Amino acid sequence: MNTRFYNARILTMENGFMIEEGELWVRSNRIVYIGTGKDRDAVENMVTWDREIDCKKNLLMPGFKNAHTHSAMTFLRSYADDLPLLEWLNRQVFPMEAKLSPEDVYHLSKLAIMEYLTSGITANFDMYFFRDQIAKASVDTGFRTVLTNGLNDFGGTVEEEEAEYLKFNAYHELISYQLGFHAEYTTNRSLLEGLAALAKKHHAPVYTHNSEGRPEVDQCLERYGMTPTVFLNSLGMFDYGGGGYHCVHMSEADLEIFRDHNMFVVTNPASNAKLASGIAPLQRMMNMGIRLAIGTDGPASNNCLDMFREMFMATSLQKLRLDDASALDANDVLYMATVGGAKAMHLDECDTLAEGKLADLIMIDLHQPNMQPINNITKNLVYSGSKSNVKMTMINGRILYEDGVFAIGVDPEEIYSIANETIQRMREQG
Amino acid sequence: MNTRFYNARILTMENGFMIEEGELWVRSNRIVYIGTGKDRDAVENMVTWDREIDCKKNLLMPGFKNAHTHSAMTFLRSYADDLPLLEWLNRQVFPMEAKLSPEDVYHLSKLAIMEYLTSGITANFDMYFFRDQIAKASVDTGFRTVLTNGLNDFGGTVEEEEAEYLKFNAYHELISYQLGFHAEYTTNRSLLEGLAALAKKHHAPVYTHNSEGRPEVDQCLERYGMTPTVFLNSLGMFDYGGGGYHCVHMSEADLEIFRDHNMFVVTNPASNAKLASGIAPLQRMMNMGIRLAIGTDGPASNNCLDMFREMFMATSLQKLRLDDASALDANDVLYMATVGGAKAMHLDECDTLAEGKLADLIMIDLHQPNMQPINNITKNLVYSGSKSNVKMTMINGRILYEDGVFAIGVDPEEIYSIANETIQRMREQG
Repeated sequence: MNTRFYNARILTMENGFMIEEGELWVRSNRIVYIGTGKDRDAVENMVTWDREIDCKKNLLMPGFKNAHTHSAMTFLRSYADDLPLLEWLNRQVFPMEAKLSPEDVYHLSKLAIMEYLTSGITANFDMYFFRDQIAKASVDTGFRTVLTNGLNDFGGTVEEEEAEYLKFNAYHELISYQLGFHAEYTTNRSLLEGLAALAKKHHAPVYTHNSEGRPEVDQCLERYGMTPTVFLNSLGMFDYGGGGYHCVHMSEADLEIFRDHNMFVVTNPASNAKLASGIAPLQRMMNMGIRLAIGTDGPASNNCLDMFREMFMATSLQKLRLDDASALDANDVLYMATVGGAKAMHLDECDTLAEGKLADLIMIDLHQPNMQPINNITKNLVYSGSKSNVKMTMINGRILYEDGVFAIGVDPEEIYSIANETIQRMREQG
Repeated sequence: MNTRFYNARILTMENGFMIEEGELWVRSNRIVYIGTGKDRDAVENMVTWDREIDCKKNLLMPGFKNAHTHSAMTFLRSYADDLPLLEWLNRQVFPMEAKLSPEDVYHLSKLAIMEYLTSGITANFDMYFFRDQIAKASVDTGFRTVLTNGLNDFGGTVEEEEAEYLKFNAYHELISYQLGFHAEYTTNRSLLEGLAALAKKHHAPVYTHNSEGRPEVDQCLERYGMTPTVFLNSLGMFDYGGGGYHCVHMSEADLEIFRDHNMFVVTNPASNAKLASGIAPLQRMMNMGIRLAIGTDGPASNNCLDMFREMFMATSLQKLRLDDASALDANDVLYMATVGGAKAMHLDECDTLAEGKLADLIMIDLHQPNMQPINNITKNLVYSGSKSNVKMTMINGRILYEDGVFAIGVDPEEIYSIANETIQRMREQG
């Protein structure tokens, strides 16, 4: 597919938050031109367009990157809310997850992918099991996924993880894989040491849930006399970087480790609020130069997969935390949700809009009341933007969602039916 | 217009959060029937339909009530964000407001009304100036507005307020009026005493901004040795009830006054977060039996007018505040956003869906990924719902918004142009 977007506003994220006006051309899966369109001879062989889209001064921008999620947990959306955290996990989540089949995960991941597309999310960093099925769901729909492993005492081995690492990084252009494990509190020391050795062998970064709740940190202090970050670092886990999901309850020493190892914090503000985990110290992290990204977490804990809500939560909670309306500027949050996420996920070709980059981009409808008047488009995105403004989502040069219609090779109603049948079957299993 | 909705799920809010399946009939501006549709003879003379709408099992429910806003501030959306509160108010907001003409307020209110409709909001409680223009904007578009007065030392008299009270409560079926003033900190004692006397004369409730920020409370304590609530109550201001917008920093004595006078707290969680005002003690208020409603506040401080975001903020911030994931159940928040708001605004005929009530209702599209699977529809509304799920908004029996298209007697692009020209003119005025 060769697509010409014209009459567009373009936020490339290559020049701060400056917005240009002009054209953006996509050949196959890559951006080949951004400019006024007057110098079109500069792009050779671009003679036939499959589509020419009048953007009507709407905004083209890089797709959002959902840097932490558990996609297939869609089946538990609104299944059990407003419960204390441990009751929710132990009585509702774990018993239901045990009933999932690989095929369930395939369909439930597709349901999440549909939701990502409606929110302008063009890639996810997905920690869940039955990863063959997750990869297949992404490839079949055309979605971009970075897989990671939720290795823990109840499932997985280091050998399997190495096999997956090699397999999925050579699997398909839409799929990649980063080393990971579930969390310090679910994974014994020997398994962690094995994973750290694997990371060293492949010079690879490692990702995990980190310091989401206060009890998690306290228990690690009791167990090892160290915080999760300090303990894991002492094993050499982060010798080649990596990152932490949540990172709500962090000591100065923890933050210094993140900074010194060039690691990523992936914040999940809506989940952390809904589950009463707390507010991550994002402004402090930013001041220290720690690299930041944003994730939705899974749909059972959030319960939606919407980067607009996450962006507003990230900045507004930080303002509350610091009692300062100027804390965590909206533009910084927009960077976290796009470029920051791409970097955390090692999607270096999907971070900005530039010639030669992969065509993972979205169109934002500015012709809606919540985006008017146009005082400041990037602030509008964070403060008043909504998934209702996502007019189009393109991944790898293919338009997968446009004006509310999906082009993902499956009828949405079929996915909804399967999701409802799945949860119904589980309820009947008792 | 006579409209028949069939094949619907219906959340009437008359029976807790139970959802029925069936039909809902509207004759002119009222609901005349809710049921299976089999007993249609029960409704006499209902022979011709102007429209019959297949709801495809989507949800009909009462419209949201935006119980505190300053609609015309749309012109300042994203004009000046991420600033300390006082700098924002004194350097950005007040000087710009001084440049508004009555005609500006007419058009800018229409822009807000469009945004309300996209979010399923069917009525607003609007505190702003040039109220003739606000009322005209509502009547011209078909929107329902409860006006209140922002009386303060810089504008308005008690005599004018009484004249307005009499005028707007007899103005049009879509318009009503409640007594109000801006806030204790902007209004001198003599003016407040005059207003309290007016309230007594008309046996009327009074509404005002109350205890939004900590400094406001501290200054009142310094000035009068009392909190704003205790001070205002000592003047007899709330002898016939009323309510407070924000109510973030409330003492036990304040809360007892609200309870004992059957007053309403209108919470504005997104604005309170974005402006770092704090988190209102909603769960405590609810436990005391204080009646609650939700408002967006104005678009300059929020910056959007979206009840879905407000609902998620209300519950998730309360969970954070109390460190308890079970705090402020989503269903309680849904009640606040619908029935609670209607009661706070004295729209007693628009609170629930029932035969004889006014037809202020919305259709929620459940055929979208964020609402699937259907484990719990009311929790979905609060935790994963979005304005993108608002398929239709009906006010007073008229469909004003449907599938992204407005029927409000004006071309949306014309409103956007005027809004942009208005802010441009103000910038040029310097």
